[in-house]
Amino acid sequence: MRDFDDSPIVRNGNSLILAYDHGLEHGPVDFEPVPESANPRHVFEVAKHEAVTALAVQKGVAETYYPEYEDEVNLLVKLNGTSDLWDPDDYYSPKNCTVQYAVEELGADAVGFTMYAGSDYEGSMFEEFRRVQEEARRYGVPVVMWAYPRGRPIKNDKKTSIISYASRIGLELGADMVKCKYPGSKTAWEEVVAVSGDMKTVMSGGSKTSDEAFLEQVHSVISAGGNGLAVGRNVFQRENPEAILDKLEGVIFEEKQPDQVL
Amino acid sequence: MRDFDDSPIVRNGNSLILAYDHGLEHGPVDFEPVPESANPRHVFEVAKHEAVTALAVQKGVAETYYPEYEDEVNLLVKLNGTSDLWDPDDYYSPKNCTVQYAVEELGADAVGFTMYAGSDYEGSMFEEFRRVQEEARRYGVPVVMWAYPRGRPIKNDKKTSIISYASRIGLELGADMVKCKYPGSKTAWEEVVAVSGDMKTVMSGGSKTSDEAFLEQVHSVISAGGNGLAVGRNVFQRENPEAILDKLEGVIFEEKQPDQVL
Amino acid sequence: MRDFDDSPIVRNGNSLILAYDHGLEHGPVDFEPVPESANPRHVFEVAKHEAVTALAVQKGVAETYYPEYEDEVNLLVKLNGTSDLWDPDDYYSPKNCTVQYAVEELGADAVGFTMYAGSDYEGSMFEEFRRVQEEARRYGVPVVMWAYPRGRPIKNDKKTSIISYASRIGLELGADMVKCKYPGSKTAWEEVVAVSGDMKTVMSGGSKTSDEAFLEQVHSVISAGGNGLAVGRNVFQRENPEAILDKLEGVIFEEKQPDQVL
Amino acid sequence: MRDFDDSPIVRNGNSLILAYDHGLEHGPVDFEPVPESANPRHVFEVAKHEAVTALAVQKGVAETYYPEYEDEVNLLVKLNGTSDLWDPDDYYSPKNCTVQYAVEELGADAVGFTMYAGSDYEGSMFEEFRRVQEEARRYGVPVVMWAYPRGRPIKNDKKTSIISYASRIGLELGADMVKCKYPGSKTAWEEVVAVSGDMKTVMSGGSKTSDEAFLEQVHSVISAGGNGLAVGRNVFQRENPEAILDKLEGVIFEEKQPDQVL
Amino acid sequence: MRDFDDSPIVRNGNSLILAYDHGLEHGPVDFEPVPESANPRHVFEVAKHEAVTALAVQKGVAETYYPEYEDEVNLLVKLNGTSDLWDPDDYYSPKNCTVQYAVEELGADAVGFTMYAGSDYEGSMFEEFRRVQEEARRYGVPVVMWAYPRGRPIKNDKKTSIISYASRIGLELGADMVKCKYPGSKTAWEEVVAVSGDMKTVMSGGSKTSDEAFLEQVHSVISAGGNGLAVGRNVFQRENPEAILDKLEGVIFEEKQPDQVL
Repeated sequence: MRDFDDSPIVRNGNSLILAYDHGLEHGPVDFEPVPESANPRHVFEVAKHEAVTALAVQKGVAETYYPEYEDEVNLLVKLNGTSDLWDPDDYYSPKNCTVQYAVEELGADAVGFTMYAGSDYEGSMFEEFRRVQEEARRYGVPVVMWAYPRGRPIKNDKKTSIISYASRIGLELGADMVKCKYPGSKTAWEEVVAVSGDMKTVMSGGSKTSDEAFLEQVHSVISAGGNGLAVGRNVFQRENPEAILDKLEGVIFEEKQPDQVL
Repeated sequence: MRDFDDSPIVRNGNSLILAYDHGLEHGPVDFEPVPESANPRHVFEVAKHEAVTALAVQKGVAETYYPEYEDEVNLLVKLNGTSDLWDPDDYYSPKNCTVQYAVEELGADAVGFTMYAGSDYEGSMFEEFRRVQEEARRYGVPVVMWAYPRGRPIKNDKKTSIISYASRIGLELGADMVKCKYPGSKTAWEEVVAVSGDMKTVMSGGSKTSDEAFLEQVHSVISAGGNGLAVGRNVFQRENPEAILDKLEGVIFEEKQPDQVL
Repeated sequence: MRDFDDSPIVRNGNSLILAYDHGLEHGPVDFEPVPESANPRHVFEVAKHEAVTALAVQKGVAETYYPEYEDEVNLLVKLNGTSDLWDPDDYYSPKNCTVQYAVEELGADAVGFTMYAGSDYEGSMFEEFRRVQEEARRYGVPVVMWAYPRGRPIKNDKKTSIISYASRIGLELGADMVKCKYPGSKTAWEEVVAVSGDMKTVMSGGSKTSDEAFLEQVHSVISAGGNGLAVGRNVFQRENPEAILDKLEGVIFEEKQPDQVL
Repeated sequence: MRDFDDSPIVRNGNSLILAYDHGLEHGPVDFEPVPESANPRHVFEVAKHEAVTALAVQKGVAETYYPEYEDEVNLLVKLNGTSDLWDPDDYYSPKNCTVQYAVEELGADAVGFTMYAGSDYEGSMFEEFRRVQEEARRYGVPVVMWAYPRGRPIKNDKKTSIISYASRIGLELGADMVKCKYPGSKTAWEEVVAVSGDMKTVMSGGSKTSDEAFLEQVHSVISAGGNGLAVGRNVFQRENPEAILDKLEGVIFEEKQPDQVL
Repeated sequence: MRDFDDSPIVRNGNSLILAYDHGLEHGPVDFEPVPESANPRHVFEVAKHEAVTALAVQKGVAETYYPEYEDEVNLLVKLNGTSDLWDPDDYYSPKNCTVQYAVEELGADAVGFTMYAGSDYEGSMFEEFRRVQEEARRYGVPVVMWAYPRGRPIKNDKKTSIISYASRIGLELGADMVKCKYPGSKTAWEEVVAVSGDMKTVMSGGSKTSDEAFLEQVHSVISAGGNGLAVGRNVFQRENPEAILDKLEGVIFEEKQPDQVL
């Protein structure tokens, strides 16, 4: 990692990344709870909230809509991704955008890369990550690793030891930030932080939960020394995404307790 | 996608692409109903009809015949394709032409790419599409994705949810237009449009049907917010292709009802 | 295809290609009927006959002997090929020479490429052909496709519909000439010609037959609108290759009937 | 190999490489005996000991911490590596860093590469090693091969004949130094040295053992004509790593017997 | 092939190549009969014998020792090779050195490449050979093919027809010299020569045999029109390699009978 505390995607050392690549990864089914969320413009509007330090989208969505929002939204281009129509023999995520295209043509402030350590394709994905990471250095943009162990040998991808290992892989391979599943407790996230060196760690938002449960999780990450959240459905599947963003802002950037914002 | 409403392949926001890559994809059997359709010159002549905003052909056909027609026909070079002699373990479409060759040597106004999401080769095809899409941007030509989910996990490729997902993949990966199978109704196409953002959607013509049925389908696409049609057999397998093109012109570009043109 | 009627490998619109890659494809066994045919110099001497518009050989044979014959023989470098020692899981032909090397170092007037449509490797071979075809255009030399459907789905590679399809693939992918197996009759070759557009078609000579039978076949190709012959064993396995070349010259280039030359 | 006795990673012809890639190769579990060893800064501090001629780490750790230590520590960037979450069909180690990045961006004094001879991927790893070795020559940095035979055909990777062969492979392919498992005796290491020509050989530290046993092994390597040690756990899993480094310094660089330093 | 009779690796049209890549291909076991043969310097000294027209070694051995011997020994760098620890699904030999590195950095006078025609990897090896052969032409160094048919379809790799075919493949693909197994008689080698055109053929030395038997074989190759020998164990596994080299010199370069030199 390189120090990127002066990057626009970081605020007071922490980040809140609004992730919106579900149209590719999960398909339109994720837009059903709030149909207008199928419209990227709706989510770009949400991303204008000052709590959001970056909006993470795939190339095509960035290319189509970012020109309208580039003054108000920070862009994280997710470089790889696949559809849920696919059923490969093991987990793999093909590259859909080069770093060069993300930065020069799309105006990316950061790039993201999914890493399925443990998959039969770990070797290929390490090698692809190398290319991405070195190219990102040439362009001076931080690299966020979606650190998701998967595949035959991974029995439980929410086990603390697995998540700690995934985060450490991010540090070893040169990521600037990892996005990990929530392992269940503040203590568990402390274990993650303990092996992650100076690299930033953010929690993956996951499927939609109640405000209380969600804010408790985010707060435990912050208080364990983590750096925030990358969240999709827990924001855009709400009728009033601004409300939850207001609360997240307090917890992530203003050192507030969940009960202070609820 | 990038805005390409000023492209010659668009007229009043819509398109009618005459597709003629059947000699490769299906073989000479598709020419049997109208034997002269085996002669590319015959189809280039048809493509001079003002309803046709582009003729889609493979490299070799473009190279041989387009010099005679470049003033009267807009060219869409289909970049990948395979023969029906092939029986691979899963769906894949190899690249037969680079964007550079299509634009610089053949004079292409647009390029086309078949995407078999759901196939075991989805990963490879995503990566190839990335190269094609980024190269097309450098040359300033729009990219049309033949969005055809196929493979083991795809039980029914005319299901609305599958077609919607396929179209969304086009948006996410940076296509400018998708060509999708007709999912059966105007309502279904509205679902497709709802998840496709600003990207254009056109219906695939499919096998030959009656004028009435065909125009109804095309009209339902237009009235659902779609952008037209990419059609092969339903034009070149007719003895009088001009007649159906006259009718399609009314429906696609002149806001006419099927019964106004029949 | 591009027009190459002014190429040295064409005479009055037709071609007679003497093929001599059997040492690679079949092995020395093909030289047994006429042992001196193992010596490339013997076959280059034969190729000086004015009926021969090009001699097709692999890189190494061209490199060793063509400097002695470049004033008297036109060179077609066969770019791919494999040995008969090989027993791969399906048909494939690796590239043994680049177009650049063939033209710049060997002095090739044309290049040749074997295409096994229908094989599991059809996809790879299409992609390789693309590179070859585009490179050939940069060097301005015509591309001859050995259009040989093979593999599991091909039950009968002499069926007219299979050969027609193979030839059409040549046109679609940008070959300038295809070499196809003889499908058995003039009518059958007419079917091939009907779907091949302006592209030239030549018959593959096949294993050695009688003068009568052979000349009848060649004549039927010419009278069906085909463009000649690519022949190896039916010439170099004869004690007097000049005699058969004299006769072929009459049939292919001088509009003679077989009985006029026999 | 090229002579690199004037390299900073060599002292009096020998080397002591502190290896710290366990966070990637084994995971955080290796940090449990001494939890502060999870913090790379702790290990960089240890590496300031003058007995350590180089610290071997992966790209990300080098990038994050080496700027603070570049005046006091010599850097060996390990170019490939994989996680223990992975369970591939046979041993392989993907490249996570180019030589160019290691030298130009990270300031590497040397590079390291794991070679699993005997694995189904031996062929791929030989080819990757070629690229690494030739690139290292362009940058003038020595290449250390982690010479670890593995895979189906390797029944016992501590057998002298296997280790000798592994070391010889290093010499044949152009490594400057090999790191091999300890084969059990001074005599065995002499066999290794006998087939390794002028190339340097160092012993792999392995899992933690007692001071006595460990120093005896290291001394037997030195007295057999070997060139030292690459060690991780036997240093950083001790509460007082400086103490063992003092002793190793005596044995490796000052010609002392184990009982002189214990 | 290109004429390379003025190359230093040829003397009076013939060659005696001392091969010393056994440390990689067979492992240290080949050095056991004469332990000092494990030391490359010992073999370089042997190679100073004027009968030896080139010493064939892998990259690492050339890099380490050739600078001391470049005035007295001609260097053939073997570009591919694998270890005997490996047990791949079929025969393949990965490239361990580029032609560029061999010539520019190591000072090679010639390069060598193992070709396993008949293996499942024949296709890949043909393609790799193409790259090597064309690069060798740019550098003006001859290419020697180790022509060793292997794999499932090869029942007997010493059969004359197999060896003839292997040699012919060398000619077809552009090798300048082939090294083949000895097929058992002068007559058999004449068959090889008959299908090899102007390309040079040398016999592979094989495992150690008596002086008499060995010289008879070499003489039969020479008298059959072959061009000499590439030999390893039959030289370096002898206590007095100079003695056998004296005899080989007579047979290969001075037209002597075996009984004249014994």
